[in-house]
Formats: sequence, structure tokens, C-alpha cells
Amino acid sequence: VNLLLLHPHEVPPGGEVGLADRRARHLREVLRVAPGSEVRVGVIDGPLGRGTVLRCDAQGVTLRCEFEGETPPAGSDTLLLAVPRPKVLARCLELASALGYGRIVLLRSWRVEKAHLGSRELAPARLRECCLRGLEQARRTRVPELAVFSRFKPFVEDRLDALVPRTARVVAHPAAATPTARAPVAAGAPFTLALGPEGGWIPYEVEMLAARGFVPVSAGPHPLRVESALALVHGQLALLRELPGRGPTPSDR
Amino acid sequence: VNLLLLHPHEVPPGGEVGLADRRARHLREVLRVAPGSEVRVGVIDGPLGRGTVLRCDAQGVTLRCEFEGETPPAGSDTLLLAVPRPKVLARCLELASALGYGRIVLLRSWRVEKAHLGSRELAPARLRECCLRGLEQARRTRVPELAVFSRFKPFVEDRLDALVPRTARVVAHPAAATPTARAPVAAGAPFTLALGPEGGWIPYEVEMLAARGFVPVSAGPHPLRVESALALVHGQLALLRELPGRGPTPSDR
Repeated sequence: VNLLLLHPHEVPPGGEVGLADRRARHLREVLRVAPGSEVRVGVIDGPLGRGTVLRCDAQGVTLRCEFEGETPPAGSDTLLLAVPRPKVLARCLELASALGYGRIVLLRSWRVEKAHLGSRELAPARLRECCLRGLEQARRTRVPELAVFSRFKPFVEDRLDALVPRTARVVAHPAAATPTARAPVAAGAPFTLALGPEGGWIPYEVEMLAARGFVPVSAGPHPLRVESALALVHGQLALLRELPGRGPTPSDR
Repeated sequence: VNLLLLHPHEVPPGGEVGLADRRARHLREVLRVAPGSEVRVGVIDGPLGRGTVLRCDAQGVTLRCEFEGETPPAGSDTLLLAVPRPKVLARCLELASALGYGRIVLLRSWRVEKAHLGSRELAPARLRECCLRGLEQARRTRVPELAVFSRFKPFVEDRLDALVPRTARVVAHPAAATPTARAPVAAGAPFTLALGPEGGWIPYEVEMLAARGFVPVSAGPHPLRVESALALVHGQLALLRELPGRGPTPSDR
């Protein structure tokens, strides 16, 4: 945990925050804070700041928090993710939040096991909790918007264009002829990445996405775990839009 | 598992292979093979090929294997990795093998907990097992060379140059002024990536690596888990060396 995340209602006007839950335990047992210790703090969907420990004992931890500047902007990239099995889903949501995605759309695809679409796995509170873990890791405060669609075709045909802004659209597809290096990402502009399940999208799905402007790109013939593929392809797209000659660095770096 | 990995001694001249271990179970229970089924096979540090299931029952699975072409070349990139905690180490070794690293050097750094350098965690057989998992995932056969150094300074001063070829050298350092987009990776050429522990290298370590030609680069101010950082930064460096204008695509894509 690189950032102590607070709910807006936990921060009173004076900035004195009392914690008695797992965050207090983490401060005491992992970070081993003492009165006077400073920690980075952030308000969910709010500003970042610093907290100074005032008191710290078995009952909990009290900090005085000061926040600097404005709330960071919401992420502008979108991730379309075929629902992986629950453990992988948790890691992917954490990672996507750490990478700063502004919107995550979970989608059923042909190779998604129906069992992974159960209501327990996809309960909004559970998904959100995974996202908060990613924000704590990456020192971010903006929670991505989450949406879940259990049917691929109706989503792509009827909902995609309304929900996902018309940014550069890329679908990761190991069999694609175009390498990620030639993905159509514009300087400093947001992108949408569609990432399939372990085993990939089926050709029909790639065609449907291509009909909506998604360019199939391949990061090579060696299959990676979904969360590794997410980090790798995201890194490549983010690098492309920052390359000297393509234009200015996006402001949220 | 996307590749059935076989030990050289398991493959007789006729190519008929009998399995009765976890691989046989995986073939039966996960891939649900039957006589006639085809699976991708590979010999550790040998060629890739196809196996046809001849027999399949509770005692095990027998396949006839045919191998195509030559043994793929060993990877030419090197990873210098500060030893993370055991679970993360296992994931990083798996991932680095999947990414095709030819050499992985595990290194103690200042922020590495001494407990993670215990002989159990770093037993060669254990490390190798993690690498094999990555090869199965990524359909590769070449096992990376592994080396472990428990002292940072003597390694960097006395062993680094002899062990690690004089390729482009890059150290991931979130505080660096140079973004990954300007890493000194040459077209089609191998690179060496030094990746620190969660929390990063300390400045003294970055200076010592810089004195040996490692260019500090940053993928941005948002800390990622070590395995995510590995996938992301690796993807960026691999993309840089493939960019149109920088030269030909490396032959091992």
C-alpha cells in the first residue's frame, strides 16, 4: 500500500481522521508508524495529500491530513475486458485501476466460462474493492467507472458507441498481422483497449469489434497471462502516444 | 498451459511419450484429450512440435510426438531483478521466462528483506520450476540461465560486466528524468533491464548501475507491483526496438 485511501465522509473539515480498521493495522504493523510519522493520503475521487500521525495505539490511529491542490482528473482510457476467472479478474481490476483507466467494461466473450459471470463474482462492491487496491498501489484516487455486460453482440452493436468515446480503438489479438508498434494511437490522446480471455477472442468477435473501428494488433506469438498481457500492451500503447515526434506528453503522467 | 513441455530423456527416437504425472492429469482433466487429440509439445531447450494422443486412461496418457525444425535460439535479453518476496519471485520468474529472457540475475538490493534470500526460496530446482511454468504459458522451450547474487556491490563491481553482455542497459527508476520512451534501445538489439524491488532501488544503487552504463528510465510516477512493472517496462523496451525506422524486427518475434 503506497497510499492511505480515505472515504470522503471520513475526512472532517479540520482534517483529523481516526481509523480503526485494516488500514490502522497496516499503518501500525507494516508501516510501523509512530506519532509524527508522515504518510501519503488520498480521498477517494478527491485530492491527494499528507497525513501526520497524532496518536497510534491498539485502539487505532489518528492522523491530521492536509490535501494539496485539486482532485486529479479522471482517467481517459477505456478497457474492454473479457471476464476472466475470479482471481484473475481481481488482479486485472487492480492493475487496470493502477494503470489509470477511467472506464472498465467487463464483457462476456465466447471463451469466457459462464460460471465466471455469477452475481457473486461480479457484485459491484466486490469489483470496486479490487479497484481501490489498485489505487492504493499506484497512488491514485479516481475510481474507474465500471460496467458489466453479459452478452457480447448486443453490447457491441447497441451500447459500445454510446458508452465508449470515439478514441483510438485497439483490440489485442495475437493472430493479428499488425504489431502493437503500429497501433493507431495518437499523440497525447486517450485510447480504448479490448483484451480477450486466456485463449483470445474468437475471429467472429474480432470482426465485430473491427467493424466498430477496433484495429487488431498483436504483441507477438507467445501467449501471456491476461494480467501480464494487460500490463504489457497498455505499456506499449501508452509509450506510443508519448513518443517524441508524436506530440506532447499527456498531462496525467 | 499452452505447451506440453517434455524433458529430453522422455522422448525416445520413435517419439512415443508416456506420461503419468500432473501433465497427464492436465491433459485428461483440463484439456480433456481423447485418442486422436492433438496438442502442442516442446522439448526443454529443444524443438517445438505436435503430439497426437494414442492412449488415454486413468493410468496416464501416451502421445506420438513429431518435432518441427530447429531448437529456437536462446533469448538474448537479460533481466537483473532485486529478489522480491517468494510469491512475487515465482510470478516474476514465470513472467520473465514467458517474455523470453535468456538470462535472469537475482540480486540482493537494499530494500530486499534479508528473509527473502533464504536457501529454500532460492533453491535452483525451485527457481527452474517457475521458469518452466512460464515456458508452458508462452509456448517457449528455452530455459533462461539463472544466477543469484546475495551482495549488490561486489556483483556490480566485479561480476556484472563478465556475466551480462554489453547490450543496451536500462535501470527502471520511477524518479528518473528520462521516460522509457527515450530508453537507449537499438533496433533489433538485445537489452538488459534492471528492475528493483517494490519501493525501488535506493539512489546509491542507481548510481552504481549508472556507472556501469545503465540508463535510469521511468515509466511514470505511479508505482506498480513488481510483476506488472516487469511486463509493462519490458513491453515498452521491446516495442522501442521494433519501431518502424529503428530497423528490422528481431527474428525471435
